[in-house]
Amino acid sequence: MTPTAEDWDVLDDAGLVPADVDGLVTYTVDTTNEAEILRNLGIPALRYFSRAPYGGALTCAVLMHAAMAVAAGVADCVVLYRAFNERSERRFGQPQAAPVDRREFVAREAGRGSDQWPAYLVYGLTTPAMWSSLIFQHYMHRYGVTNEDFGRYSVVARAHAATNPNAHFYERPITLEEHQSSRWIVEPVLRLLDCCQETDGGVAIVVTTPERALDLRQPPVAVVAAAQSLLYNGDVVTPYHRPDLSHLDDLAHVAEELWGQSGLGVDDIDAAMIYEHFSPIVFMQLEALGFCAPGEAKDFIAEGNLALDGRLPTNTHGGHLGEAYLHGMNHVTEAVRQLRGTAANQLSDPEHVIVSSGMSGAILGRII
Amino acid sequence: MTPTAEDWDVLDDAGLVPADVDGLVTYTVDTTNEAEILRNLGIPALRYFSRAPYGGALTCAVLMHAAMAVAAGVADCVVLYRAFNERSERRFGQPQAAPVDRREFVAREAGRGSDQWPAYLVYGLTTPAMWSSLIFQHYMHRYGVTNEDFGRYSVVARAHAATNPNAHFYERPITLEEHQSSRWIVEPVLRLLDCCQETDGGVAIVVTTPERALDLRQPPVAVVAAAQSLLYNGDVVTPYHRPDLSHLDDLAHVAEELWGQSGLGVDDIDAAMIYEHFSPIVFMQLEALGFCAPGEAKDFIAEGNLALDGRLPTNTHGGHLGEAYLHGMNHVTEAVRQLRGTAANQLSDPEHVIVSSGMSGAILGRII
Repeated sequence: MTPTAEDWDVLDDAGLVPADVDGLVTYTVDTTNEAEILRNLGIPALRYFSRAPYGGALTCAVLMHAAMAVAAGVADCVVLYRAFNERSERRFGQPQAAPVDRREFVAREAGRGSDQWPAYLVYGLTTPAMWSSLIFQHYMHRYGVTNEDFGRYSVVARAHAATNPNAHFYERPITLEEHQSSRWIVEPVLRLLDCCQETDGGVAIVVTTPERALDLRQPPVAVVAAAQSLLYNGDVVTPYHRPDLSHLDDLAHVAEELWGQSGLGVDDIDAAMIYEHFSPIVFMQLEALGFCAPGEAKDFIAEGNLALDGRLPTNTHGGHLGEAYLHGMNHVTEAVRQLRGTAANQLSDPEHVIVSSGMSGAILGRII
Repeated sequence: MTPTAEDWDVLDDAGLVPADVDGLVTYTVDTTNEAEILRNLGIPALRYFSRAPYGGALTCAVLMHAAMAVAAGVADCVVLYRAFNERSERRFGQPQAAPVDRREFVAREAGRGSDQWPAYLVYGLTTPAMWSSLIFQHYMHRYGVTNEDFGRYSVVARAHAATNPNAHFYERPITLEEHQSSRWIVEPVLRLLDCCQETDGGVAIVVTTPERALDLRQPPVAVVAAAQSLLYNGDVVTPYHRPDLSHLDDLAHVAEELWGQSGLGVDDIDAAMIYEHFSPIVFMQLEALGFCAPGEAKDFIAEGNLALDGRLPTNTHGGHLGEAYLHGMNHVTEAVRQLRGTAANQLSDPEHVIVSSGMSGAILGRII
C-alpha cells in the first residue's frame, strides 16, 4: 500500500505546524539528526531533545521522556520519531564483524548496544537472532516450548496484518504449516517466519499537554503510565550474566511500575502491543507483564487469546512480523489508533492498551 | 595531584550507597555502558536512564534531564556521569578521516555530532579546532578581536588552575607573553594555549529530591533553572548555515529561558562556569548570556572581570584549559563546590552560579 499524505505528516494530522514543535526524542541508534530535522521542516526552536539508549528495548522510555518533559514544563509539544531504511540501505540484524580492536567496537556501540557483544562475536554469535536464541532456547528447555508454539504467534500476527491495509503483509496470512515449513534461521529456535521484517519507513508521534491535546485535530490518548528499567547484571539483547534467562526481569520491574503508577491490573487491559524482533519474545513478555504465569504463554496463545476476539488482542496491526519493523514505534501508534477508534482491525471500545518493549512499557488510555 | 579516595566516590561523598541510585544520565558520546556500571557498582535497579546528544554542548541538558526525572517522580536519585581516557586512549579532537561512505559516517556519528561534517572533511577541515576557528574568525573580524585578546582568558584560567590542587596545571600559571609565543594551532585564531587539555578522568554528580538532599552528607545545591536549545539552521560545533556566525543564538535562547525560569538576571549571578574547548568560546558565551554586549567581551575580560576578585569570577577551577577537560561536567562540580564553600579558590558566599555550555545552561543556587 502506498501511504497517503496524511500518513506521512504527523503535524498536519494533529493540526499543528512545525513552529509548534519544541521537543524531539528518539533512540541513540537513530541516524536522523535533530539539527537536520529543524533545517528540513523549518522548526524554529527546540527546548528539549534527548535520546534513549538500547534501541527498541526502550520504545516506551522514549515516550516516557517526552511525557516527562511536557509534565515538567520543559517543552509543550514533543515529537518522538524513528526512521530508517533498513530494507534498502543499512540492513539491521546483519552479522557484526568481530572487531580488530574491542575498544573501537565499544566506542562505536556506546549508548547503543552491549559492551559484551565483541566477546560473543568471536564465537560466531554475530546476529541478534543468534544472541536472542540462546535465551529463547533456555526458555524452551525450561518450559517445554517448541518452535511450533512460537509459530502460533506468527500466525496471529500475520492474520492481523492480512486485514490491515498499512501492513507489508496485507492480504497475506500464513498457516501454521507454512510457518513450520519455512527455513530455519537458528535451529531449533527460530524459523524465517518467526523473524521481524526489514523495513524502510518512519513513525512520528506528538506528545503534548492534556489541555492542548484536547484542542487538536485528532482525539487524544492519555499516557496513563510509563516506565523503563535496567536491573543488575542485565544487558540489551544479551543478559547472559544472569543465572536464569527464562524470565524478563527488567520487564517484570517495568510492569510493577506500570501497575503502581496507574492503579490498574492485567484485567483492566483491553489489548497489548508487544515488541517482537522474534516471536518467542512475545511469550516471555506476556509472562513478565503478568498476563500468564511463567511457562504458560504457549497455552495462553494456543487458546486464541491474542486474536481480535480473544481475551488480550495483541499486535492488532500485525506487529513487527506483519505490519513493519519500526523499532516499536508502530506499536505505540497502533495503541493510539485502537484508543481513537481508527485502527484497521478496530476493537470494540478499548479503554486501556499496554505497550511493552523488553525494558520499557506504557499504558495508554482513552480520553474521549 | 593524586585524587583522594573521596574524590573518586560520588556516592560515598554524598552518604549514599549503590542501592540508592535509580537513574543514570550521560552523553551519547560516553563509552561507559549503563549495564556495565550496574554490574561493576552493584546497583540493583534503574528506573531512568537517558543520553543527551551533541557532547559537551549539552552539559546542562544532562543536568536538566536528571532534574526532570526527579521532579516528575520517575527516579529519586539520578547520577550524571562523564568519563573518558582521551589522553591515553581515544584522543578527542584528532583529525577525522574523510569517509569512504558518507552514510557510514553519518550512521556512526548519529546522535553525537553533525551530519554536515563529512562535507567539511574533504576540504581539509578535519578537527574541532578547525571547525570552530571558522566561527571564531568571523567573530574576530566583526568585532576587531585578536588572538592576544583570547590569550587574556587563557591567562585567567591558568591563574585559577595554578591555585587549585586538583588542576592539571596546578602551580603552573602562564603570562600573556607565554600565550603569545605558544605555537599556532589554527593561525590566526588559536594558539596551543587557547586549547583545552586532553584528560583521563571522570566526573559523577548526584541529583535527588530537595528533601533527600538535605539529609545527605554534603550541603546540597539547588538547580534553580536549567535549559537546552537548538534553533533553526543550527548545528553542533559547525552552525555554518547561519548568516551570522558571530553570535551564539542557541545560547541566547537558553539564557532567556534561564532568566525566565529563575526570575534572576545577570546582576544576580556571582560566578560563571563556562565550557571552553577553546578560549574564544568564552567570549561568545559571555555575550550570549548577556554579561556584556556583542563584541564587548574583550574589554570585559581585559578589565579583569573574570578574576577571583572581579565582577564575574569565571572558571574558578581553571576550566578545561587549566583544570581538566571533562566535557563540561567539571564546570558543574566547580559550581557546586563554590556554592558549598569547598572550592580551592573559594569566593565569598556566592549565592548563584551560572553554568553554560554552548547549547545549554543552568543556574545553581546555594541552599544552606
